[in-house]
Amino acid sequence: MADKKKRKRSKDAQEEDLPFKSILESDDVILKLLKSYISSSLTSAAAGSSGASSSSSSKPLTLADLSLSSSCREVADLSLSSVQTEIETVIVQIARSILAGDGFSFSVPSRAASNQLYVPELDRIVLKDKSTLRPFASVSSVRKTTITTRILALIHQLCLRNIHVTKRDLFYTDVKLFQDQTQSDAVLDDVSCMLGCTRSSLNVIAAEKGVVVGRLIFSDNGDMIDCTKMGMGGKAIPPNIDRVGDMQSDAMFILLVEKDAAYIRLAEDRFYNRFPCIIVTAKGQPDVATRLFLRKMKMELKLPVLALVDSDPYGLKILSVYGCGSKNMSYDSANLTTPDIKWLGIRPSDLDKYKIPEQCRLPMTEQDIKTGKDMLEEDFVKKNPGWVEELNLMVKTKQKAEIQALSSFGFQYLSEVYLPLKLQQQDWL
Amino acid sequence: MADKKKRKRSKDAQEEDLPFKSILESDDVILKLLKSYISSSLTSAAAGSSGASSSSSSKPLTLADLSLSSSCREVADLSLSSVQTEIETVIVQIARSILAGDGFSFSVPSRAASNQLYVPELDRIVLKDKSTLRPFASVSSVRKTTITTRILALIHQLCLRNIHVTKRDLFYTDVKLFQDQTQSDAVLDDVSCMLGCTRSSLNVIAAEKGVVVGRLIFSDNGDMIDCTKMGMGGKAIPPNIDRVGDMQSDAMFILLVEKDAAYIRLAEDRFYNRFPCIIVTAKGQPDVATRLFLRKMKMELKLPVLALVDSDPYGLKILSVYGCGSKNMSYDSANLTTPDIKWLGIRPSDLDKYKIPEQCRLPMTEQDIKTGKDMLEEDFVKKNPGWVEELNLMVKTKQKAEIQALSSFGFQYLSEVYLPLKLQQQDWL
Repeated sequence: MADKKKRKRSKDAQEEDLPFKSILESDDVILKLLKSYISSSLTSAAAGSSGASSSSSSKPLTLADLSLSSSCREVADLSLSSVQTEIETVIVQIARSILAGDGFSFSVPSRAASNQLYVPELDRIVLKDKSTLRPFASVSSVRKTTITTRILALIHQLCLRNIHVTKRDLFYTDVKLFQDQTQSDAVLDDVSCMLGCTRSSLNVIAAEKGVVVGRLIFSDNGDMIDCTKMGMGGKAIPPNIDRVGDMQSDAMFILLVEKDAAYIRLAEDRFYNRFPCIIVTAKGQPDVATRLFLRKMKMELKLPVLALVDSDPYGLKILSVYGCGSKNMSYDSANLTTPDIKWLGIRPSDLDKYKIPEQCRLPMTEQDIKTGKDMLEEDFVKKNPGWVEELNLMVKTKQKAEIQALSSFGFQYLSEVYLPLKLQQQDWL
Repeated sequence: MADKKKRKRSKDAQEEDLPFKSILESDDVILKLLKSYISSSLTSAAAGSSGASSSSSSKPLTLADLSLSSSCREVADLSLSSVQTEIETVIVQIARSILAGDGFSFSVPSRAASNQLYVPELDRIVLKDKSTLRPFASVSSVRKTTITTRILALIHQLCLRNIHVTKRDLFYTDVKLFQDQTQSDAVLDDVSCMLGCTRSSLNVIAAEKGVVVGRLIFSDNGDMIDCTKMGMGGKAIPPNIDRVGDMQSDAMFILLVEKDAAYIRLAEDRFYNRFPCIIVTAKGQPDVATRLFLRKMKMELKLPVLALVDSDPYGLKILSVYGCGSKNMSYDSANLTTPDIKWLGIRPSDLDKYKIPEQCRLPMTEQDIKTGKDMLEEDFVKKNPGWVEELNLMVKTKQKAEIQALSSFGFQYLSEVYLPLKLQQQDWL
């Protein structure tokens, strides 16, 4: 063991000439810097919020706090019994309407792009209040009305039994009617909006693919999980957020990682023991379960979220999905998005700063450049001048790089130099 | 709570007319049947193996036990220090060859299809003994020789530091030389064969995507994991099998599930508490980490493995990858494959037996039918007459069905009727 340590030391000596290795402070100093950052950011967040809402509470802003020109719709997490009651209310209303001779129809909120609105104060996309009528006695909508009724009945059954199913399960309960899974999926989103609840309140869940490791303890379906004791594999993020609770943590920040290669490096090096943190990844495109889990951590633990993504337009896009939602599920954005995610890296300016070798940078394709330019027009980018600057640099240099590009300085450069230095310099936007 | 139970009971009463619900025995009876099956299969396995190897030990067959016409090559799990020694030996040999005036070249085992062999006794694909010379002083191989040398140096570094990296990390350490990840990946497989060790012995790991839940306790990188206490999300399967150990279990079988929807159903219903088992899934195409983990469970716990896959050619293909390996990594097949996996369902004959409604069956495409016919020619299918019969039925009826098709009888039909009945009737091939 002593022998191994010595060998490692001499290795380190060879590595002193790595970029920035020499200016790295000791872990104690970095931890002290972090602590003061966190306490100051908590204070300013509380002050900012109380200033904006003109009350002294630090409650986060909601749609109701804003006086918007058009009234907007947001969905909320409802308990199973509330969902059940909502469904029964809808059905009783319809029965009354039929008895009164007014026929059978649903009023369904529109989820079209024209009915979506980005709210800068909330930093989220929400739905405006347009609704469309879905009458049974119409050739063009009779099928959709029938599907809606069937989905309501199935969800009601899930409430009674208190079980979770996937969208795919739901589709297979009546293939003859639904014909195609896109049809049952679309109506499921309609039903969420109609009932005013999140999709996870309906007990319809998405397949999980995220993992979490680090300084977090939480309960999953009644079992207490200690994420410091999950080895290198980590804990699979539960698909049903409503059975997740009792979050406790002594972490100083949440590290959101785009891809698993970087996640594995950090998990094996137990980075979270050196700098107390929670490491989470959806292994690529963010899935609903991971987005819900990240939001819950942020809300309950009040920790800063630092994002480590590739330096390309898709890295930033992934960050934006976590941060302000996807257009497809905008009605649910309040529950799916995590406010105030910081862009730690790999940022376009890091490529030169950290002297990433030319051969580890990749030329951007035409499509990449177009995506980058499109993103410059997005509200969520424009509100952050630092992001605009970085994205402009990316589009100008036409270069991108993956997180793995740091491996050109050694496999552990990410965990031993790059991230500690980022923390030391509080270098995020 | 009592109220909820009552409601559930009355639900059950309505469901008595579900296919086969009425002939289902009590759990106790099924468990007794299972126990006798397992003890008899263990006895017969021991007898079979001792008969074949003509010794009285129940050690599994290895390549060395067979007198094959052509000598074959298999790789083994080596310790880090052995890998290090092997690399140093190769380099010393080359230095000697250079000093003797014979030049610098590697002898690399061929991984071409013509050098692969299916061994029915082992039920695995192995490599025959053809090797090719890779000289440095040749325009056509100088690049590959250089890459091989570089990869050997990098692996040597991993051994010294005792850390794991992904293939992607490896590629990024020298993009200028490797140019393209397929090149470093291919040479990595060459190096495995050259050194006679598995890829995981090289500390180069694949991204994990599998999860496990149920009656299993094991250690992941030093942390003890109890898979009955992993909620609904389960435990992510660790990417590095060499840090997995101390497996303990009171399970009666391992349930290998193709897709996560079925996995989620079984995890939420805690099926493993009703019928003691370990539930594992790679969420689709089997990845290396899940294949290694399944094999390790099978070898250490000596449990039957029952596979629940879609009733289509790809379901069977997935089963075959777990069971006898993929052509691409045939050199490593001994360590990646799990012998004697039983095909529990959904089998083509189940479609009629369980009265799966017509609308939940899908017509096979031309490509599906071609894949099905191709599989009928595969050795691993042909050796099991039951499988041939089922596959013939599939190709004849031109119908396929997903596991989720069972949801047409209710979301919990899979866990409450289908699987218990399969266990009761020991209905697997």
